[in-house]
Amino acid sequence: MLLSIIYIIGITAEAMTGALSAGRRNMDWFGVMLVASATAIGGGSVRDILLGNYPLTWVAHPEYLLITCVAGIVTTWLAKWVVKFKGVFMRLDALGLAAFSIIGCQVGLNMGLHYGICVVAAIVTGVFGGLLRDLICRQTPLVLHQELYASVALIVACLYLTLAHFAIDESISIIASLLVGYLVRMASVRFKWRLPRFNLLETAR
Amino acid sequence: MLLSIIYIIGITAEAMTGALSAGRRNMDWFGVMLVASATAIGGGSVRDILLGNYPLTWVAHPEYLLITCVAGIVTTWLAKWVVKFKGVFMRLDALGLAAFSIIGCQVGLNMGLHYGICVVAAIVTGVFGGLLRDLICRQTPLVLHQELYASVALIVACLYLTLAHFAIDESISIIASLLVGYLVRMASVRFKWRLPRFNLLETAR
Amino acid sequence: MLLSIIYIIGITAEAMTGALSAGRRNMDWFGVMLVASATAIGGGSVRDILLGNYPLTWVAHPEYLLITCVAGIVTTWLAKWVVKFKGVFMRLDALGLAAFSIIGCQVGLNMGLHYGICVVAAIVTGVFGGLLRDLICRQTPLVLHQELYASVALIVACLYLTLAHFAIDESISIIASLLVGYLVRMASVRFKWRLPRFNLLETAR
Repeated sequence: MLLSIIYIIGITAEAMTGALSAGRRNMDWFGVMLVASATAIGGGSVRDILLGNYPLTWVAHPEYLLITCVAGIVTTWLAKWVVKFKGVFMRLDALGLAAFSIIGCQVGLNMGLHYGICVVAAIVTGVFGGLLRDLICRQTPLVLHQELYASVALIVACLYLTLAHFAIDESISIIASLLVGYLVRMASVRFKWRLPRFNLLETAR
Repeated sequence: MLLSIIYIIGITAEAMTGALSAGRRNMDWFGVMLVASATAIGGGSVRDILLGNYPLTWVAHPEYLLITCVAGIVTTWLAKWVVKFKGVFMRLDALGLAAFSIIGCQVGLNMGLHYGICVVAAIVTGVFGGLLRDLICRQTPLVLHQELYASVALIVACLYLTLAHFAIDESISIIASLLVGYLVRMASVRFKWRLPRFNLLETAR
Repeated sequence: MLLSIIYIIGITAEAMTGALSAGRRNMDWFGVMLVASATAIGGGSVRDILLGNYPLTWVAHPEYLLITCVAGIVTTWLAKWVVKFKGVFMRLDALGLAAFSIIGCQVGLNMGLHYGICVVAAIVTGVFGGLLRDLICRQTPLVLHQELYASVALIVACLYLTLAHFAIDESISIIASLLVGYLVRMASVRFKWRLPRFNLLETAR
């Protein structure tokens, strides 16, 4: 229940930031709705396609798709405020990332998959929305360069799976994972934590 | 039957315009066949993958894939004429768009999906071929900037679903939807109808 | 058995060359693992998604994904050597291409698909890994411009399917197909064999 609420907040926030990317590319309303939806629910869709987990969430629940499309269009009117309150959106995005990762784990566990694949499912859910957004908008994918993002999904997944493995109460597991994911993500932004980079030109000299 | 014929004309026309995009990028024959096929049958493939509607059309009917590959290669010889008669191709493309949208609706209805998802299926069928073409050819996706395209698919889908809902005779529904789709598309090109755009730089100033 | 060994060698080599592309784009470790894995096992994944052949190979065998991720990270340390021994990697890549094509055929045959679709499955397996790599790294896809690559997959597929059709002993078919694929690929690199290109600007003048 808590997870559902945070999921809906998360896809709304992601859709709005996705719409901003579409606005930077001067797209029309259809483009805005496409990029907003791809950003918000593209990660879960890629996960379900990779795992063969049909029907996709938004096919079973068209209201989610409605939310992301409306959030995208609303953003075209409220762009000024979305940009102004970007700190709030970053917080909602951090919470959404943690929620997406937990949901990814749950899907993997429900399908009886290997823990390693559950972790992959969590990372795909958390990361591929942004990756799709950047592919459609022809930007260099941020998640491959920036602060910890996939790593946060990894940490949340490992924590949640560990708690699930030892049969800790579900709502405690979810709250703990959300909290840790949120804090690690915010800390990584604040302190500019980054994964090591691979610069071929320097390394191979 | 009429729909099948227009479908085949549609994928042939789309494959030929897709091949032109490959030619602008100086691709080899394999690239031409890939882009031609992705343009023509990529939309339907994405739709079926999103809906989990297996087997894909071209897996069940390899002859469609043969048609798009041959159309692509033939275009490398007839490029001059394809460019010269681009008005004809635009008309065929408009007809194809309407046919694709109707087929998308039918797939959704046959799977017993929500009307809203049927509309999405129609739009994906009509639009994602061009989107894939532009991703592979590394162009800014036209459908996100240009005249009405997704909107035509939306109108066709709403009309067809309404007629289907009231159990109007199938062939009448199809002909009416094809006609309306064709006319709206051609009018949007003629009168440069466009969706509102979202320009973040202006809006957020 | 031989095929499995060559498959594992193939995905390792492809992952390492994929990691180099990520290094050229200065990606972080997550990007390196993503590009390495997409290059190595993305072709097979696209094939299985198109054919609806679930579960995907790496979902059933997470160890393959582990291999590609580790190979990617190891490449960040050994980049100098990978670049230096690029001739060796080209040979392994040629062998991998042949193995991927054979595996693609086998998947199609096991699913009872039309021979034409088996050939497509072989080409997708062999080619789409590199295509995904270039899309993520925002490079012009090499396979659409360069020496024979898809054509090698096509030749291997036709040979293997012919041998399978006449019920030739499986291991002989595999060895013959591997050998022919390897030799044609190496010859195409050596002698710069290319498919005809389609240059729209010249053709349509």
